[in-house]
Amino acid sequence: MTLDKFFNAKNIAIIGVSRNPNKIGHIILRNFIDSGYNGNIFIVNPNAGSILNKTSYKKVSNINEDIDLAVIAVPAELVFDSVKDCNKKRIKNVVIVTSGFSEIGNVKEENKLKDYMNKNKMKCIGVNCLGVFDAHTKLDTLFLPRYRLKRPKEGGISFVCQSGAVGSTILDLATSQKHGFSKFISYGNATNVDESDLIEYLSKDQLTKVICVYVEAVKDGRKFMKVCSNVSKLKPIVLVKGGISEEGNKATLSHTGSLAGNAKVYSAAFKQSGIIEVKNLQEMLDAGRTFDSVMKPKGNRIQVITNGGGYGIMATDSIIENNLKMAEVGKETKKILKKVFGKNVTISNPMDLVGDATTEMYRTAISNALSDKNNDILLVIALYQTPLLTPDIVDVIIEANNLKKKPILVVSAGGEFTEVLKENLEETGVPCFTFPHQAVSAIKYLLEYHGR
Amino acid sequence: MTLDKFFNAKNIAIIGVSRNPNKIGHIILRNFIDSGYNGNIFIVNPNAGSILNKTSYKKVSNINEDIDLAVIAVPAELVFDSVKDCNKKRIKNVVIVTSGFSEIGNVKEENKLKDYMNKNKMKCIGVNCLGVFDAHTKLDTLFLPRYRLKRPKEGGISFVCQSGAVGSTILDLATSQKHGFSKFISYGNATNVDESDLIEYLSKDQLTKVICVYVEAVKDGRKFMKVCSNVSKLKPIVLVKGGISEEGNKATLSHTGSLAGNAKVYSAAFKQSGIIEVKNLQEMLDAGRTFDSVMKPKGNRIQVITNGGGYGIMATDSIIENNLKMAEVGKETKKILKKVFGKNVTISNPMDLVGDATTEMYRTAISNALSDKNNDILLVIALYQTPLLTPDIVDVIIEANNLKKKPILVVSAGGEFTEVLKENLEETGVPCFTFPHQAVSAIKYLLEYHGR
Repeated sequence: MTLDKFFNAKNIAIIGVSRNPNKIGHIILRNFIDSGYNGNIFIVNPNAGSILNKTSYKKVSNINEDIDLAVIAVPAELVFDSVKDCNKKRIKNVVIVTSGFSEIGNVKEENKLKDYMNKNKMKCIGVNCLGVFDAHTKLDTLFLPRYRLKRPKEGGISFVCQSGAVGSTILDLATSQKHGFSKFISYGNATNVDESDLIEYLSKDQLTKVICVYVEAVKDGRKFMKVCSNVSKLKPIVLVKGGISEEGNKATLSHTGSLAGNAKVYSAAFKQSGIIEVKNLQEMLDAGRTFDSVMKPKGNRIQVITNGGGYGIMATDSIIENNLKMAEVGKETKKILKKVFGKNVTISNPMDLVGDATTEMYRTAISNALSDKNNDILLVIALYQTPLLTPDIVDVIIEANNLKKKPILVVSAGGEFTEVLKENLEETGVPCFTFPHQAVSAIKYLLEYHGR
Repeated sequence: MTLDKFFNAKNIAIIGVSRNPNKIGHIILRNFIDSGYNGNIFIVNPNAGSILNKTSYKKVSNINEDIDLAVIAVPAELVFDSVKDCNKKRIKNVVIVTSGFSEIGNVKEENKLKDYMNKNKMKCIGVNCLGVFDAHTKLDTLFLPRYRLKRPKEGGISFVCQSGAVGSTILDLATSQKHGFSKFISYGNATNVDESDLIEYLSKDQLTKVICVYVEAVKDGRKFMKVCSNVSKLKPIVLVKGGISEEGNKATLSHTGSLAGNAKVYSAAFKQSGIIEVKNLQEMLDAGRTFDSVMKPKGNRIQVITNGGGYGIMATDSIIENNLKMAEVGKETKKILKKVFGKNVTISNPMDLVGDATTEMYRTAISNALSDKNNDILLVIALYQTPLLTPDIVDVIIEANNLKKKPILVVSAGGEFTEVLKENLEETGVPCFTFPHQAVSAIKYLLEYHGR
């Protein structure tokens, strides 16, 4: 059974919409209105006649039209009745954001819910979750106000996580950094749809280029490994495991109602399943948008081009530390560049165009590096503090990237001026990083996935 | 001989000011005017009558007033004559930004300069450097335009680095993140003032609370160790070593004209000298502003307070991974908090106030944690995406921090809304981080320095 309806339902019922604008159901309705979602919204509230110009129904079964998806935001004690009413109305897909189930020890109630849904072939995202956001269709059940949590632009990253807080912060951060998303799912207690189901679904989603996952406990290890082994052959799965320490592990029990298990066992299983396990959320974001943006490298030789000697050196250190390979500049390229640059630039790797590098020098260095058969990946460090580097350096990099010859990653550290130029690059799909070690770790995971 | 004049000279001569606004000398003059520096500026240019409303002198020795400090920005071949003329005028402090000396193999010319200055008891910052910026006096020789490179506010971080690019990017980044600086020195080739001299000087600077250093090659290892052994007893030295790999090491030769040496030997020497060696610039900034802001912890037990379960778990993982200690909540505190919070909050560590945590709940949790004798450091994770966390959470944290009872570090990940609240905290000296692993690494270095 596909999970398609969770992302492109035509008629959606929001059950539990309050008049109070601070209540979850109300925020969900408001977000559906603000998002420009291209579908029909019906609201359910036994008391209110009309909220935000929408007529409310006492029960979902009172609605005449067919409903594809219900979003349930009623208090925990009313969830079961709502689900039953959904079933009566033949709604087979529900997002239940309500908390108060197994995560606070209320296992019995959750099991009752689960059994009922399984028996009636219903699929549920939740309980105890933020739900779903689709950057392409704009379907958005996240009950967090848009001024607090911005929604990202369209792109190829999909993110699956138990934790609503991890999901929402990453979404918010990624938006401000101009990364593009396909689908976001915070699945909470995974009552009857778990991370494996979601990952399998995303593997078939044409718009998803990389699947990022934050997970504390895997519900069904065997299923997870089987699914990921297959999916990781199709697209990269980048994963952060929470609860790798014994102490952190204990803390997961009160978080999602399940123990996170032995870290080493998990890591081994991840590796065996072709999953790229990263150290933290920063690495996940860095690797995620790299997989989303760059092409498959033909080999593992990295050429560094820089206008800051120190940054070139730190990049080199990081490359060597991660057992990656510095490219050697080809003879032909050396000859050409020596002629153009003269004695001020050492034609090697890192190639230091020095502090008075111009945009034109970058153009020459990059285009020759792209033609050079002796490297496979370009790490371009462009520090925008110097006046000779004009803002059209961005165009130079974008044009080079558009040739689709080799993966290009960019490092630029700085303040406002730098951030604007970085955003311009990110907008067109060039992954940018603040520090060399970040770009290098992204390259490491890229090469790991492609077996280079 | 003190280096005081480099930071608070009264009469400064800028030698080599061009009419061309893109030339280095011109930019330096422009920056002195824009910075609001409280001193007199004299400019030297053999050709121009007046630049930016300042009369120019043909030679520095033609100026009538006494000059404390000269900033030399003439082409390399004219530097020696300028220095001689400075000496004639009894100027003993010069910043030479000009490049084209040992870093491109021109060792002979640099040695000639060095010998002359040593003989005449002159002190020189440079050659081949950005020079000096003092956030308190506003003295500013950095020849990078202010719209590209913002200058930071006053604070306690001083930063010493060979590399101009590393220095300027960090300054720019730190400014946008509202960190406060005392003194910044990019010393380039260290012709006759090296990192050791600068570190020793900064150890006596009352406004410097932490000395950050980026170094590729140490000029005089024995001197460096001796100086740092003494200084590190007075204030923390946080250091990044560039060129730790053999390949990176080789690249340093073309960068500053000196080989960076064996990384392991360096690391051992750093450790022996009480230096805190960090892995990269991110860690340097994170540790630097933590040392600048927080008090000395009384012990090593960390209490985590969060409104996002996943973040609490990741913080715990990171604490354990770094061999740090999770605090146990005291019996008395447990009793009080159980009464206030009821069953929805698990009173433990991490203390998860869950997604609907209010500002008032944070106030209660933080104030009780501050009174609890069973912890020494608070790691407060405040995720601002949820509507119940009102912006006055910032006031709650600032008030708690102002009590000066324990170090408080804050983690908040997100976009614009989050960044604004983080900046408010940073402005008042509460160090903020995006991800738990960053805060935990800063705590690790804090505890390492204080021997906890």
